[in-house]
Amino acid sequence: SQMELNNEFGVTKFKEFPYVSAPHRNLMVDLVSTVENRLGSQLLPCTLPPDVQYYQNQTGSAHASLHTRSGNKPSQSQIDFILGSWIHCELPTGGALNITSLSAFLNPLTDAPNFLIELIQSSPTSLILILDLPPRKDLVLCPDYLHTFYEETQLDTRKQRLEKIPEVKPYISSSLYIRSVVSPTAIMVRIETEASQPGRVEEVIKDHVDPIAKEVLGIWLDQCACGKREVGEAERAILEKRDGLIKIKTIEVDLGSNFPRLFGPEVANRVLGAIRDVYTV
Amino acid sequence: SQMELNNEFGVTKFKEFPYVSAPHRNLMVDLVSTVENRLGSQLLPCTLPPDVQYYQNQTGSAHASLHTRSGNKPSQSQIDFILGSWIHCELPTGGALNITSLSAFLNPLTDAPNFLIELIQSSPTSLILILDLPPRKDLVLCPDYLHTFYEETQLDTRKQRLEKIPEVKPYISSSLYIRSVVSPTAIMVRIETEASQPGRVEEVIKDHVDPIAKEVLGIWLDQCACGKREVGEAERAILEKRDGLIKIKTIEVDLGSNFPRLFGPEVANRVLGAIRDVYTV
Repeated sequence: SQMELNNEFGVTKFKEFPYVSAPHRNLMVDLVSTVENRLGSQLLPCTLPPDVQYYQNQTGSAHASLHTRSGNKPSQSQIDFILGSWIHCELPTGGALNITSLSAFLNPLTDAPNFLIELIQSSPTSLILILDLPPRKDLVLCPDYLHTFYEETQLDTRKQRLEKIPEVKPYISSSLYIRSVVSPTAIMVRIETEASQPGRVEEVIKDHVDPIAKEVLGIWLDQCACGKREVGEAERAILEKRDGLIKIKTIEVDLGSNFPRLFGPEVANRVLGAIRDVYTV
Repeated sequence: SQMELNNEFGVTKFKEFPYVSAPHRNLMVDLVSTVENRLGSQLLPCTLPPDVQYYQNQTGSAHASLHTRSGNKPSQSQIDFILGSWIHCELPTGGALNITSLSAFLNPLTDAPNFLIELIQSSPTSLILILDLPPRKDLVLCPDYLHTFYEETQLDTRKQRLEKIPEVKPYISSSLYIRSVVSPTAIMVRIETEASQPGRVEEVIKDHVDPIAKEVLGIWLDQCACGKREVGEAERAILEKRDGLIKIKTIEVDLGSNFPRLFGPEVANRVLGAIRDVYTV
């Protein structure tokens, strides 16, 4: 059917990551495949309209793709949904901005952390990486949770390994809410290379970001997505409230301000509406 | 009386900060006086035993002073207690380790943030500074709280000002719990200067750390210690639990491991016991 063809087109388009370098694309494709292979049976197909799965602005200077799959509730899946995206945007200066991301949200059948990776490349010599398992509870109130998911998993050793690379500097989000949402082992870095070393960003992605991102995703799949946790009634209500707030604030901070600027109000409203639908399924 | 004399001696000793540089001492004396002048009428006298107000290890290579004053409950003070300390410890390498700190904890009559400053100088060319208003609620669940105490107060501009100084590098605590306790505008930095520039650490303290610390304390006094907040019954119970956990974990992480090593088990037990008493008043 036309719908199936459109969907197929959307999925293909998403998984092409057509505007980023080979190491960047390989990493994203690998992460998405790993998640879909491991959780596939729990995930419903992507039901986004074709013009949200792939969209562009009026002048054709900005292209983007969105891919979401919700967890299959009747099968008691712990997955709320996964959300992958890429954005490509030509800059007035001649270069391009490329953002690729994959996030995975769990539902209140578990209180385990979510998964998040985002790569933002604004020039051939500069890349921002955000890689984290954002906690779903107040870590100050829950030292056991901190111990289980962040200390025992040795997430901090991955952060330390990456921060040892000379080109890697800390990246501090301007949003205090984003800073609050991430875990104490969040990798938030800016990779700044010399113009005299073309291809160095890609080298850092291939040699360092790639293996570390895969390790962190592996920890998330084993300990969070597929682990079992006891969650009481009262706790579930707090989780629902907290998860919901994070989604609202993330749209506000991350997408709400940039999308209209990049894609115009009409496309932005269509895409943000579709994201809001997935968020509240 | 002997007790009063001893107390007088302890207070004097504490406020002398005898082992640190003049700019470092001036800053600490000024912060302590500002807090005591502003909150004085709400604070009970220090009731620590003299051998906790001032103590040393067996060989005399480590000296320290502790000063605590609890809030006067019948007067409806919002202050739980303030705690100031300094530690001086000769290092086997010939140098000395000097730590000075001032923290102020509020009680559950308010949910406003606490205050914390700690300066750790381990060599003439290196100083760690921790300066923060640690939140008393889960910021992810409370965007309004984040807005009131961290965005509207422009705390982040202070952090940015300090981080612009070339010698200032980020300091990352090895404790994930400490990283979780601090706010998204926490100043956690290491000031690293060149041996060829003697006195540069003191210059950075005087020109940059001093004014910023006073501004942050001013915000805390105006908005937190002396502001009024509505706190419901249920919320008060969560605050009590959260405040209590922070105190227990802070002793564990910060003091529990270092004190016995520096002062021997007997002195460490005496001092930690006295701190625990203040914590649970």
